[in-house]
Amino acid sequence: MTRAPSLNRPIGVFDSGVGGLTVLQALRRRLPHRDFAYLGDTARVPYGRKPPQMVVEFAVGIADFLCGLGVDFLVVACNTASAVALPALIERSRVPVCGVIDPGVEAATRATRTGSVGVIGTKGTIGSSAYQSRLEARGLRTWSQACPMLVHVVEEGLADSPESELLVTQYLSNRPEIDTLILGCTHYPLLSRVIQKAVGADVRLVDSAEVTAETVSSNFDGSPNTFEPGRVVHFVTGDPLAFAHTAAVIGGVDGEIIPLPVTELVAVTAE
Amino acid sequence: MTRAPSLNRPIGVFDSGVGGLTVLQALRRRLPHRDFAYLGDTARVPYGRKPPQMVVEFAVGIADFLCGLGVDFLVVACNTASAVALPALIERSRVPVCGVIDPGVEAATRATRTGSVGVIGTKGTIGSSAYQSRLEARGLRTWSQACPMLVHVVEEGLADSPESELLVTQYLSNRPEIDTLILGCTHYPLLSRVIQKAVGADVRLVDSAEVTAETVSSNFDGSPNTFEPGRVVHFVTGDPLAFAHTAAVIGGVDGEIIPLPVTELVAVTAE
Repeated sequence: MTRAPSLNRPIGVFDSGVGGLTVLQALRRRLPHRDFAYLGDTARVPYGRKPPQMVVEFAVGIADFLCGLGVDFLVVACNTASAVALPALIERSRVPVCGVIDPGVEAATRATRTGSVGVIGTKGTIGSSAYQSRLEARGLRTWSQACPMLVHVVEEGLADSPESELLVTQYLSNRPEIDTLILGCTHYPLLSRVIQKAVGADVRLVDSAEVTAETVSSNFDGSPNTFEPGRVVHFVTGDPLAFAHTAAVIGGVDGEIIPLPVTELVAVTAE
Repeated sequence: MTRAPSLNRPIGVFDSGVGGLTVLQALRRRLPHRDFAYLGDTARVPYGRKPPQMVVEFAVGIADFLCGLGVDFLVVACNTASAVALPALIERSRVPVCGVIDPGVEAATRATRTGSVGVIGTKGTIGSSAYQSRLEARGLRTWSQACPMLVHVVEEGLADSPESELLVTQYLSNRPEIDTLILGCTHYPLLSRVIQKAVGADVRLVDSAEVTAETVSSNFDGSPNTFEPGRVVHFVTGDPLAFAHTAAVIGGVDGEIIPLPVTELVAVTAE
């Protein structure tokens, strides 16, 4: 059994890999005195094209592991897992759970003037219609596009490259008139410049990392238990060196990295 | 310690992930009665943009593991590992070691009429100049291009897609006159159709999986110890389900998949 270093009631944050680090960084800027336990499931990344039931099983095992560490809040910093597994996670967890979909929908609803909102994400996220159904329930018109290659462009360190421009242009080529575009994947904020160039300056981009951090931090009263800087521990199911190397394209990791065998991420069945 | 099922003097084949399965399949067509132990280092894939010394360490640990299983031949079915780690592997191993670079160079030398050969591969493979220096030592002119996104196009199941056409066209756009193109990555044979379309029918494509299988099989006399079909065991460092799911785009796996913790892949220091 993997032992966790002593953290003080950490906030648990998980993602399929390094993408959720954008959410973690946004959270730490708002809650600098809190401790965080991050879990990157790099042995099973990417989630985007895996069957939904497989992603639900992964997410439940991860949530049970993080709850076993004594987290008092759980952030699903992965759009694919938020899109397909959030109901299962909320049902099981004894702590509050926040995904990245609802904060993104809230922010887009506030941002749009014309009522036409676009959303881009992985195949799993777009295929689940999680964003689209929530936006449409609010009377908004939606356009959506799965962009399976964009995660890889970011992880290859090619956010600013001919490849990213080509792919972004292609994915956005058949969009209708929209005034707001949700970046429905935690990797996409790193492509903001290229995406903004493709859609034009008039379209507002909604960065799910930022709006999720805003929502989560509003649950904490801001008065820290301590004035010490918070600590972060990163659990990774794949290779720690590989995690650190890929994470460098997202700004790197600031804290310990602990290898965690996938076999420890099984759902706790005894309720 | 992971226990291996009893295989009869298997041929060891390893790759960073699923790409080497194209080599394994080509080998099995030529040596249908041999047993194979395949190792896919999916917890640390991709190798293509990792520092060379990191890839050498991974490869040495894997070779030691496979040699510990009693393999009597080792095939490095990964161009990046072949490009940077082959000398270290040959020095350590007590069994013959074959990479994918030399067979590809041989085949391209036979194929070219004009003496102008192109090679495409990962950043690691192209950056190592392993292909280029060998080709140039034979008096051939070379052109090379790193294509970091093409592995991901294949693993996403997008070999035939607008994304693959865009990326292939971009990567090959500034090539000079060549009459032969080495597909210097075990994933690229799945892009043959798109690549052939981009370069035109007159350019001969060298598939390193096929030519490597040809070279390796020439080391065996063809008379099997048995008339039973050979068996294959796949060791994977990441998640077995995820491996099977990604492998489906390469034709799937035919044989047992055994999870293998990365921690068992450390170089054996006692010689």
